[in-house]
Amino acid sequence: MSNAASQLAAYRKTIDNLDNALVHILAERFRCTDAVGLLKAQHDFPPVDPDREARQFSRLRGLAQDAKADPDFVERLIKSIMIEVVARHRQISADYAAQQVDAP
Amino acid sequence: MSNAASQLAAYRKTIDNLDNALVHILAERFRCTDAVGLLKAQHDFPPVDPDREARQFSRLRGLAQDAKADPDFVERLIKSIMIEVVARHRQISADYAAQQVDAP
Repeated sequence: MSNAASQLAAYRKTIDNLDNALVHILAERFRCTDAVGLLKAQHDFPPVDPDREARQFSRLRGLAQDAKADPDFVERLIKSIMIEVVARHRQISADYAAQQVDAP
Repeated sequence: MSNAASQLAAYRKTIDNLDNALVHILAERFRCTDAVGLLKAQHDFPPVDPDREARQFSRLRGLAQDAKADPDFVERLIKSIMIEVVARHRQISADYAAQQVDAP
Protein backbone atom coordinates (compact mmCIF):
# COMPACT_ATOMS: atom_id res chain seq x y z
CA MET A 1 0.00 0.00 0.00
CA SER A 2 1.31 3.51 -0.82
CA ASN A 3 2.01 5.90 2.01
CA ALA A 4 -1.07 7.98 1.09
CA ALA A 5 -3.31 4.90 0.91
CA SER A 6 -2.14 3.71 4.34
CA GLN A 7 -2.69 7.21 5.76
CA LEU A 8 -6.23 7.13 4.32
CA ALA A 9 -6.83 3.70 5.89
CA ALA A 10 -5.63 5.00 9.28
CA TYR A 11 -7.98 8.03 9.13
CA ARG A 12 -10.86 5.74 8.21
CA LYS A 13 -10.18 3.52 11.21
CA THR A 14 -10.36 6.61 13.44
CA ILE A 15 -13.57 7.78 11.73
CA ASP A 16 -15.12 4.32 12.26
CA ASN A 17 -14.20 4.39 15.96
CA LEU A 18 -15.65 7.89 16.35
CA ASP A 19 -18.87 6.80 14.59
CA ASN A 20 -19.17 3.79 16.92
CA ALA A 21 -18.83 6.18 19.86
CA LEU A 22 -21.44 8.52 18.31
CA VAL A 23 -23.96 5.66 18.01
CA HIS A 24 -23.47 4.61 21.63
CA ILE A 25 -23.73 8.16 22.94
CA LEU A 26 -26.90 8.66 20.88
CA ALA A 27 -28.35 5.40 22.24
CA GLU A 28 -27.66 6.53 25.80
CA ARG A 29 -29.08 10.00 25.07
CA PHE A 30 -32.35 8.44 23.80
CA ARG A 31 -32.45 6.15 26.85
CA CYS A 32 -32.30 9.28 29.04
CA THR A 33 -34.77 11.34 27.00
CA ASP A 34 -37.23 8.39 26.95
CA ALA A 35 -37.01 8.31 30.76
CA VAL A 36 -37.60 12.09 30.79
CA GLY A 37 -40.63 11.56 28.52
CA LEU A 38 -42.14 9.07 30.97
CA LEU A 39 -41.43 11.36 33.94
CA LYS A 40 -43.10 14.27 32.12
CA ALA A 41 -46.15 12.12 31.28
CA GLN A 42 -46.45 10.85 34.86
CA HIS A 43 -46.12 14.28 36.46
CA ASP A 44 -47.75 16.45 33.82
CA PHE A 45 -44.59 18.47 33.27
CA PRO A 46 -44.69 20.78 30.21
CA PRO A 47 -43.49 18.95 27.06
CA VAL A 48 -40.89 21.58 26.08
CA ASP A 49 -38.84 24.13 27.99
CA PRO A 50 -37.77 26.92 25.60
CA ASP A 51 -35.43 28.50 28.18
CA ARG A 52 -33.55 25.24 28.68
CA GLU A 53 -33.31 24.73 24.90
CA ALA A 54 -31.89 28.23 24.42
CA ARG A 55 -29.28 27.57 27.12
CA GLN A 56 -28.40 24.22 25.52
CA PHE A 57 -27.85 25.73 22.06
CA SER A 58 -25.83 28.61 23.43
CA ARG A 59 -23.57 26.22 25.41
CA LEU A 60 -23.16 23.76 22.52
CA ARG A 61 -22.40 26.51 19.98
CA GLY A 62 -19.68 27.78 22.33
CA LEU A 63 -18.20 24.29 22.72
CA ALA A 64 -18.31 23.79 18.93
CA GLN A 65 -16.49 27.08 18.39
CA ASP A 66 -13.79 26.19 20.94
CA ALA A 67 -13.33 22.76 19.32
CA LYS A 68 -13.18 24.34 15.83
CA ALA A 69 -16.39 22.66 14.64
CA ASP A 70 -19.03 24.60 12.68
CA PRO A 71 -21.53 25.90 15.31
CA ASP A 72 -24.34 26.14 12.72
CA PHE A 73 -23.91 22.52 11.67
CA VAL A 74 -23.74 21.36 15.31
CA GLU A 75 -26.91 23.31 16.13
CA ARG A 76 -28.74 21.82 13.12
CA LEU A 77 -27.67 18.30 14.13
CA ILE A 78 -28.72 18.67 17.78
CA LYS A 79 -32.02 20.22 16.60
CA SER A 80 -32.75 17.16 14.44
CA ILE A 81 -32.11 14.95 17.49
CA MET A 82 -34.47 17.12 19.59
CA ILE A 83 -37.22 16.88 16.95
CA GLU A 84 -36.94 13.08 17.20
CA VAL A 85 -37.06 13.33 21.01
CA VAL A 86 -40.27 15.40 20.90
CA ALA A 87 -41.89 12.80 18.58
CA ARG A 88 -40.90 10.02 20.99
CA HIS A 89 -42.21 12.00 23.99
CA ARG A 90 -45.54 12.40 22.22
CA GLN A 91 -45.68 8.61 21.74
CA ILE A 92 -44.62 7.91 25.35
CA SER A 93 -47.28 10.32 26.62
CA ALA A 94 -50.01 8.69 24.45
CA ASP A 95 -48.94 5.20 25.61
CA TYR A 96 -49.00 6.34 29.26
CA ALA A 97 -52.48 7.93 28.88
CA ALA A 98 -53.79 4.73 27.21
CA GLN A 99 -52.39 2.65 30.10
CA GLN A 100 -54.17 4.83 32.67
CA VAL A 101 -57.50 4.35 30.85
CA ASP A 102 -56.97 0.57 30.64
CA ALA A 103 -56.03 0.26 34.31
CA PRO A 104 -58.83 -1.26 36.45
CA MET B 1 -37.51 20.39 44.80
CA SER B 2 -39.94 17.46 44.43
CA ASN B 3 -38.54 14.00 43.85
CA ALA B 4 -39.73 14.08 40.20
CA ALA B 5 -38.21 17.52 39.63
CA SER B 6 -34.85 16.42 41.04
CA GLN B 7 -34.97 13.26 38.88
CA LEU B 8 -35.62 15.47 35.83
CA ALA B 9 -32.68 17.71 36.80
CA ALA B 10 -30.41 14.63 37.09
CA TYR B 11 -31.44 13.34 33.64
CA ARG B 12 -30.81 16.77 32.16
CA LYS B 13 -27.31 16.86 33.62
CA THR B 14 -26.61 13.49 31.94
CA ILE B 15 -28.09 14.73 28.65
CA ASP B 16 -25.89 17.84 28.81
CA ASN B 17 -22.79 15.73 29.41
CA LEU B 18 -23.68 13.42 26.51
CA ASP B 19 -24.24 16.45 24.24
CA ASN B 20 -20.86 17.87 25.21
CA ALA B 21 -19.30 14.52 24.28
CA LEU B 22 -21.24 14.50 20.97
CA VAL B 23 -19.88 17.94 20.05
CA HIS B 24 -16.29 16.93 20.79
CA ILE B 25 -16.59 13.66 18.88
CA LEU B 26 -18.11 15.55 15.93
CA ALA B 27 -15.26 18.10 16.05
CA GLU B 28 -12.67 15.31 15.98
CA ARG B 29 -14.56 13.52 13.17
CA PHE B 30 -14.49 16.70 11.02
CA ARG B 31 -10.78 17.15 11.81
CA CYS B 32 -10.20 13.64 10.42
CA THR B 33 -12.47 14.01 7.40
CA ASP B 34 -10.86 17.39 6.54
CA ALA B 35 -7.47 15.62 6.58
CA VAL B 36 -8.95 12.91 4.34
CA GLY B 37 -10.23 15.64 2.00
CA LEU B 38 -6.75 17.13 1.66
CA LEU B 39 -5.20 13.67 1.10
CA LYS B 40 -7.77 12.93 -1.60
CA ALA B 41 -7.11 16.28 -3.30
CA GLN B 42 -3.32 15.79 -3.18
CA HIS B 43 -3.42 12.23 -4.53
CA ASP B 44 -6.41 12.43 -6.83
CA PHE B 45 -8.30 9.75 -4.90
CA PRO B 46 -11.98 9.36 -5.89
CA PRO B 47 -14.20 11.73 -3.81
CA VAL B 48 -16.62 9.01 -2.65
CA ASP B 49 -16.35 5.26 -2.08
CA PRO B 50 -19.85 3.71 -2.26
CA ASP B 51 -18.61 0.29 -1.03
CA ARG B 52 -17.10 1.82 2.10
CA GLU B 53 -20.28 3.84 2.72
CA ALA B 54 -22.44 0.71 2.42
CA ARG B 55 -20.19 -1.11 4.91
CA GLN B 56 -20.34 1.88 7.31
CA PHE B 57 -24.14 2.04 7.27
CA SER B 58 -24.49 -1.70 7.70
CA ARG B 59 -22.10 -1.68 10.69
CA LEU B 60 -23.69 1.39 12.34
CA ARG B 61 -27.23 0.05 11.88
CA GLY B 62 -26.13 -3.16 13.60
CA LEU B 63 -24.56 -1.22 16.48
CA ALA B 64 -27.70 0.92 16.81
CA GLN B 65 -29.88 -2.19 16.97
CA ASP B 66 -27.67 -3.79 19.64
CA ALA B 67 -27.74 -0.57 21.69
CA LYS B 68 -31.55 -0.27 21.28
CA ALA B 69 -31.36 2.94 19.24
CA ASP B 70 -33.48 3.42 16.11
CA PRO B 71 -31.28 2.27 13.17
CA ASP B 72 -33.21 4.46 10.68
CA PHE B 73 -32.68 7.59 12.75
CA VAL B 74 -28.98 6.79 13.27
CA GLU B 75 -28.55 6.22 9.51
CA ARG B 76 -30.28 9.54 8.71
CA LEU B 77 -28.08 11.38 11.20
CA ILE B 78 -24.81 9.88 9.92
CA LYS B 79 -25.96 10.59 6.34
CA SER B 80 -26.47 14.28 7.18
CA ILE B 81 -22.92 14.35 8.60
CA MET B 82 -21.59 12.72 5.43
CA ILE B 83 -23.37 15.27 3.21
CA GLU B 84 -21.58 18.02 5.17
CA VAL B 85 -18.27 16.14 4.76
CA VAL B 86 -18.71 15.95 0.96
CA ALA B 87 -19.41 19.71 0.81
CA ARG B 88 -16.24 20.38 2.84
CA HIS B 89 -14.20 18.02 0.64
CA ARG B 90 -15.37 19.94 -2.43
CA GLN B 91 -14.17 23.19 -0.80
CA ILE B 92 -10.85 21.65 0.28
CA SER B 93 -10.28 20.31 -3.26
CA ALA B 94 -11.08 23.71 -4.82
CA ASP B 95 -8.74 25.49 -2.36
CA TYR B 96 -5.97 22.97 -3.11
CA ALA B 97 -6.39 23.38 -6.88
CA ALA B 98 -6.29 27.19 -6.54
CA GLN B 99 -3.09 26.92 -4.48
CA GLN B 100 -1.43 24.80 -7.20
CA VAL B 101 -2.28 27.41 -9.84
CA ASP B 102 -0.96 30.23 -7.63
CA ALA B 103 2.32 28.42 -6.82
CA PRO B 104 5.31 29.85 -8.72
